[in-house]
Amino acid sequence: MTARSAPDRLLAVLAAFDHEHPALCLTDISRRAGLSLTTTHRLVGALTAWGALERDGAGVYHVGLRLWELAALAPRGLALRQVALPYLEDLYEATHENVQLAVRDGTEVVYVEWLSGRSAVGVHIRVGARWPLHATGVGLALLAHCGPEVQEAYCAGPLAAFTPYTLTDPVRLRRVLAEVRRTGTAVSDRQVTDDALSVAAPVRAADGTVTAAVSVVVPHDAARIPVLGPAVRLAARGISRALGWQPDGAESRGAAR
Amino acid sequence: MTARSAPDRLLAVLAAFDHEHPALCLTDISRRAGLSLTTTHRLVGALTAWGALERDGAGVYHVGLRLWELAALAPRGLALRQVALPYLEDLYEATHENVQLAVRDGTEVVYVEWLSGRSAVGVHIRVGARWPLHATGVGLALLAHCGPEVQEAYCAGPLAAFTPYTLTDPVRLRRVLAEVRRTGTAVSDRQVTDDALSVAAPVRAADGTVTAAVSVVVPHDAARIPVLGPAVRLAARGISRALGWQPDGAESRGAAR
Repeated sequence: MTARSAPDRLLAVLAAFDHEHPALCLTDISRRAGLSLTTTHRLVGALTAWGALERDGAGVYHVGLRLWELAALAPRGLALRQVALPYLEDLYEATHENVQLAVRDGTEVVYVEWLSGRSAVGVHIRVGARWPLHATGVGLALLAHCGPEVQEAYCAGPLAAFTPYTLTDPVRLRRVLAEVRRTGTAVSDRQVTDDALSVAAPVRAADGTVTAAVSVVVPHDAARIPVLGPAVRLAARGISRALGWQPDGAESRGAAR
Repeated sequence: MTARSAPDRLLAVLAAFDHEHPALCLTDISRRAGLSLTTTHRLVGALTAWGALERDGAGVYHVGLRLWELAALAPRGLALRQVALPYLEDLYEATHENVQLAVRDGTEVVYVEWLSGRSAVGVHIRVGARWPLHATGVGLALLAHCGPEVQEAYCAGPLAAFTPYTLTDPVRLRRVLAEVRRTGTAVSDRQVTDDALSVAAPVRAADGTVTAAVSVVVPHDAARIPVLGPAVRLAARGISRALGWQPDGAESRGAAR
């Protein structure tokens, strides 16, 4: 580990923090980063002085406000969320169910926004959470609009199962992706947890490429796909327009179906 | 600048990005960070490989998704926002005006959440934006609940004016802060822009300390303070309870008045 470069060591300290470990003491950071206590102490000091980390009264470190301010500039993070939020709010007001916005990062979806009514069903998804593309509605909406080679590589790879309903058969997955492109809607039925169903639609950037997906998660038994589909597609189109997308005939018909 | 430590140089690269410069090419970063092009190239490479930065098709760098995921762990950033969002949504549904959540960072407020109806008045505030404490409603709500020495130091310091209405007289500021503590509501009337008014209330953590503030921004002329005050205070109390705050008699009366 001493062979690691200075930037790598500093980033290893930041990488020590995740959703399972949002608060760490110096020794935890040292162990998780694989760095000596001396080095960790020096790097944590620099990060804390800068504001990337914050030290609480008990001497425990947390991710700092400065990092959060910087992250607000991420085009695929808060910046996208800022454009999308009014439309997500409208979707929430229309459905009062969990509403989500996600982007693709390699073979996973990352949730960049999540509006959850206190009344809505509890789902194990939070801002920053990741899931494999094939398991979620937003993931299927994103994968269905990737280049053919990306889709092929994904379908050929191992498809993890989270419930008995998770799509793990490549042939079936390819058929589902074609259906998503045809209808403009992706449905994940109990693929993540055996009680939830999500309905998703793709969000397009100004150049027409699919850059994000919107979804609503509802209890499987109460699922009203015919009602939710149009609402989710409308929200997705609203965000796409706000991003500068101009529907042409084909896309327009596809997404409006 | 060569005397700067390795961590400082890497953080200088990140610090090159701000709301005025969310997208930078390598030479911009090099100039803004005060680093040689060679060093900048190496550090940007490490940050991009890690996901802290993302390079677009045009070779321009943006803040990356990984940094945003990490920032989602910031207790005073997205974590606070996640707890507060349902209450902010309720406040938005009740008022349909700009709703904000802010925390104090030294002598400034930092906005960690901002719900803006497309119908609401346009205000020059965005997530991650900073303003001096004395100019904004949230800032006054936060300053009024700082320790006496912090308040004194702030009142004694220079008080920047943004409009003819900005509070720049220390004596008047002290009087306003006492009023904020008495009523549980802070009002900033045309102090940031000469057409907007904000009504704010403090958010308390489990230990009772004021850690954030909620506000609604409305057009000055249409301002309905008697109506907005209670709504903002209720939202602030809801968030405080969600953070584990148990009102005792005094706080309860104070905040409920």
